[in-house]
Amino acid sequence: MELIENLKKADPKAIARILTIVENESEEAKEFIEKISPFVGKSYVIGFTGPLGSGKSTLIEGVSLKLAERGYTIGILAIDPSSPFSGGAFLGDRIRMQKINLRDEIFIRSISTRGIQGGLSPTIGNMIRVMDAAGKDFVIIETVGTGQDEVDVAKMVDTCIIVTMPGLGDEIQVIKAGLIEIGDIFVVNKADQLGADMMVSYFRSVLEGSPNRNGWIPPVVETVAVKEQGIDRLVDILLSHKEFLEKKGLLSLKRRQRLQLEILNIIKSKLIFLIEQQLLSSKDFEAYLDKAISRKQNPYQCAEKLLSLLIKMLLQEEDNEGKKD
Amino acid sequence: MELIENLKKADPKAIARILTIVENESEEAKEFIEKISPFVGKSYVIGFTGPLGSGKSTLIEGVSLKLAERGYTIGILAIDPSSPFSGGAFLGDRIRMQKINLRDEIFIRSISTRGIQGGLSPTIGNMIRVMDAAGKDFVIIETVGTGQDEVDVAKMVDTCIIVTMPGLGDEIQVIKAGLIEIGDIFVVNKADQLGADMMVSYFRSVLEGSPNRNGWIPPVVETVAVKEQGIDRLVDILLSHKEFLEKKGLLSLKRRQRLQLEILNIIKSKLIFLIEQQLLSSKDFEAYLDKAISRKQNPYQCAEKLLSLLIKMLLQEEDNEGKKD
Repeated sequence: MELIENLKKADPKAIARILTIVENESEEAKEFIEKISPFVGKSYVIGFTGPLGSGKSTLIEGVSLKLAERGYTIGILAIDPSSPFSGGAFLGDRIRMQKINLRDEIFIRSISTRGIQGGLSPTIGNMIRVMDAAGKDFVIIETVGTGQDEVDVAKMVDTCIIVTMPGLGDEIQVIKAGLIEIGDIFVVNKADQLGADMMVSYFRSVLEGSPNRNGWIPPVVETVAVKEQGIDRLVDILLSHKEFLEKKGLLSLKRRQRLQLEILNIIKSKLIFLIEQQLLSSKDFEAYLDKAISRKQNPYQCAEKLLSLLIKMLLQEEDNEGKKD
Repeated sequence: MELIENLKKADPKAIARILTIVENESEEAKEFIEKISPFVGKSYVIGFTGPLGSGKSTLIEGVSLKLAERGYTIGILAIDPSSPFSGGAFLGDRIRMQKINLRDEIFIRSISTRGIQGGLSPTIGNMIRVMDAAGKDFVIIETVGTGQDEVDVAKMVDTCIIVTMPGLGDEIQVIKAGLIEIGDIFVVNKADQLGADMMVSYFRSVLEGSPNRNGWIPPVVETVAVKEQGIDRLVDILLSHKEFLEKKGLLSLKRRQRLQLEILNIIKSKLIFLIEQQLLSSKDFEAYLDKAISRKQNPYQCAEKLLSLLIKMLLQEEDNEGKKD
């Protein structure tokens, strides 16, 4: 297929087009993923996550430019709706972003929040695959890091970078505990502001009680992204984490974990589709709901009956699939 | 059972104990829900949702006190981890909260974020049921409103109140579009700060393009919760929305919708349990993963095979359940 050939040549139009197809989760998407799957497995995936206003986008911009200078190609996927990459944030941010928008080595794409609805959608994994097939050395994912969805996304990356800033106070609690546990590098951005030292100490203390990461001790890095301070060091640390994973043979484990999540997400998303599209509109659902409303049955009894119905639907599906093959 | 008798008498210790049981999602939880289900259906459920720092907790405190003054009983469930109800936020907030902590009419409970993991957990619905069985006239739910989880929770309430404040800038985008669509009342809190008028205009303009709500035009209310300004008006509007739903016969529709979500959540949570506890640890999963890693199969092919396996597990479960009955 010409489109896939162009994708493999990193043609921006082909990347954009296939990303859109994949994001729309159509039958066509599945077909594309099946076709590009043999060519993937080379990209290194980095996640940047942290609360609003912590300066993730500026950091990503800085890191991407440095990586490009060192000869790498980069694909950016922004899930944060307030990200300037996604068209959010202030005009000034968006103008600044043009610095990286104009570089051939860097491809940027924002993901509509619909794409991660329920955290169960296979979209993210598929979009990483597209960037991977396009030969991007690094795929960078930007998320907000407040919901379970983001923890799930963060689990799909090779290096997880948690970004925060001084003065957030108790809002730091908004970074899910699960994220702290899987963070590989912690960045205190806007480190020229009051309270940066306290933030660094806070992270060090949190990390002390955090589970072992096979010998990797997550560094806490201070940056001032808008002044391009600390970015070089962050890139060095990032690359040293990559090297650490490679040397310890952990990278293949991470890839396996990502694939596992991808497969699980496909299964979950199929089940949820069946539940929401077929089960919900079935007459039986309404009948059970009537019984629950009149308290003849409790929600658990209704759920059990409906689960039996769902199993029948699944068996029917399976049967149809079998006939297709 | 004595515990349930005490719950029906609104004994705080019994409420707290049963809420804990329900939150832990044990087999015992299911039993309790089955036992209290015949006594529920009277509570009116209000959701407060909005970004961090918008003053939701102070508003909830104000509204609860006013409702208590008018003779109602209130149960508060806080999902926002930064909420002073949940032990987050500043010490000052927590001291202030004691005003309502000391009142018999108001029962406060925070929900660990684990409780809403993946937004699929039936916990919230069950915790509402417990408050309902304890005879609370109003159940108030506090969420952050940034993730899909919160949109799902907001769908379970009778009146959904969206709280924001001036000066949030583009962070307002963080309120999910889905939340705007289901908001019944919009509050611009901290309305004595610069930019309040702009925020009010913003909401009015957003609401113009928003779908019809059966004739209810969502009011935009200005409040200064810390100065107790606008709270009485907010309570009046809240009660008028309740009356509107009752008169139009929409309340029973809302209850039906909530029950539907509850039942769906039970089904989803059971499926996810099976997937994560049994499917993930099965030898077949590892074998398919090997094939996917070596690119002999793509993720969709693996997912299909595993789905067949899951159906077998479900049939087995169903069979066992049948034997128990």
